[in-house]
Amino acid sequence: MKVYGDTRSGNCYKTQLIMSLLDIEHEWVHINILKGDNLSDEFQAKNPNGKIPVLELDDGRFISESNAIINYLAAGSTYYPSDRFAHAEVLQWQFFEQYSHEPYIAVARFIAKYLGMPAERRDEFVSKQEGGYKALKVMEQHLNKHDYFVNNRLTTADMALFAYTHVADEGGFELNQYPAIQRWIKRIQSEPKFIPME
Amino acid sequence: MKVYGDTRSGNCYKTQLIMSLLDIEHEWVHINILKGDNLSDEFQAKNPNGKIPVLELDDGRFISESNAIINYLAAGSTYYPSDRFAHAEVLQWQFFEQYSHEPYIAVARFIAKYLGMPAERRDEFVSKQEGGYKALKVMEQHLNKHDYFVNNRLTTADMALFAYTHVADEGGFELNQYPAIQRWIKRIQSEPKFIPME
Ligand SMILES: N[C@@H](CCC(=O)N[C@@H](CS)C(=O)NCC(=O)O)C(=O)O
Ligand SMILES: N[C@@H](CCC(=O)N[C@@H](CS)C(=O)NCC(=O)O)C(=O)O
Repeated sequence: MKVYGDTRSGNCYKTQLIMSLLDIEHEWVHINILKGDNLSDEFQAKNPNGKIPVLELDDGRFISESNAIINYLAAGSTYYPSDRFAHAEVLQWQFFEQYSHEPYIAVARFIAKYLGMPAERRDEFVSKQEGGYKALKVMEQHLNKHDYFVNNRLTTADMALFAYTHVADEGGFELNQYPAIQRWIKRIQSEPKFIPME
Repeated sequence: MKVYGDTRSGNCYKTQLIMSLLDIEHEWVHINILKGDNLSDEFQAKNPNGKIPVLELDDGRFISESNAIINYLAAGSTYYPSDRFAHAEVLQWQFFEQYSHEPYIAVARFIAKYLGMPAERRDEFVSKQEGGYKALKVMEQHLNKHDYFVNNRLTTADMALFAYTHVADEGGFELNQYPAIQRWIKRIQSEPKFIPME
């Protein structure tokens, strides 16, 4: 298997994390989006939407979208429950992550950390704070009552949400006010085969 | 089962469509987001993220996020394939819908159609056009070679993408340039148990 990605991206880190937890051997092909590697015809043939990460299977087929990739890799393991309701809950939290969390927290971090907060994107950075804090509040409320998001054990829902939450401070989000989130972050970081984001 | 939603919302329509295709009896509870029904404590107890649609099961449990709901309802049917790769492809297209399609096409439509294009949101409306057209281009490319998104038959991936694509004109998107998308829309509309969006 091959992953096309950039280890500084939380969406790509999700795939690294599950591959480490499940001991999946793979080759990592570095794609630099700041240099436009994702815009080449060669890359667009792998993912016409031009985004990383992309998983290439040994038979040459491709899967894009970070959460689809980690669920594919986790299939059959306890990280991706097959019980009908638990399965729906995993997807619920992953869609929440992609719609109500990542577009605020990951984008604010990208503007601050990778673009170096250019003046012309400062307003956009500021506009991301409210939505990001709203997502953190929803998470804190859930984690106040549960150790993990689904089934009270680690699943791909946690991995999806962990990726950008644990570096939310790099997007200007103060995690001090969220003790349950902080405990959950530590819980994941103490998994035996955990690997940190670069 | 109960659905909390607004039939004018594409995300809610997805649940109506699958329930019609599968003959699932349910009660529809109207939630008017323009009047703030989703902000009540009562509603937030069902979905702390305050969004519709929400599915309530007969045992009182809740599922939010439109694509998680339709996959839950379709479980065990051909609309939600269990083959590992096809399953990943369904999720891939649904995450694409939530991240690269809906935030452009549905939001532009909401500003134009439901808010009546207020002057202070005109710039935002305009800013949504590029991303929306990019998503349509990715869809057209796929549908040029396939009748449906996954397995060459109707799945919840099509339902997710159909919801806002077939009314994209209401968000200012010209579908004339996308003949494969137009044929796919007609294909779905001619399903025996298809129901139109209100
Ligand atoms: N919904 C996608 C988002 C992926 C995404 O936005 N990737 C970024 C890097 S973190 C990217 O490829 N950006 C380049 C672009 O959008 O052109 C996923 O979860 O995989
Ligand atoms: N990712 C969610 C999006 C749902 C969504 O944005 N629903 C809108 C109506 S179409 C809503 O409830 N808006 C009210 C709000 O966000 O406060 C899904 O797919 O269900």
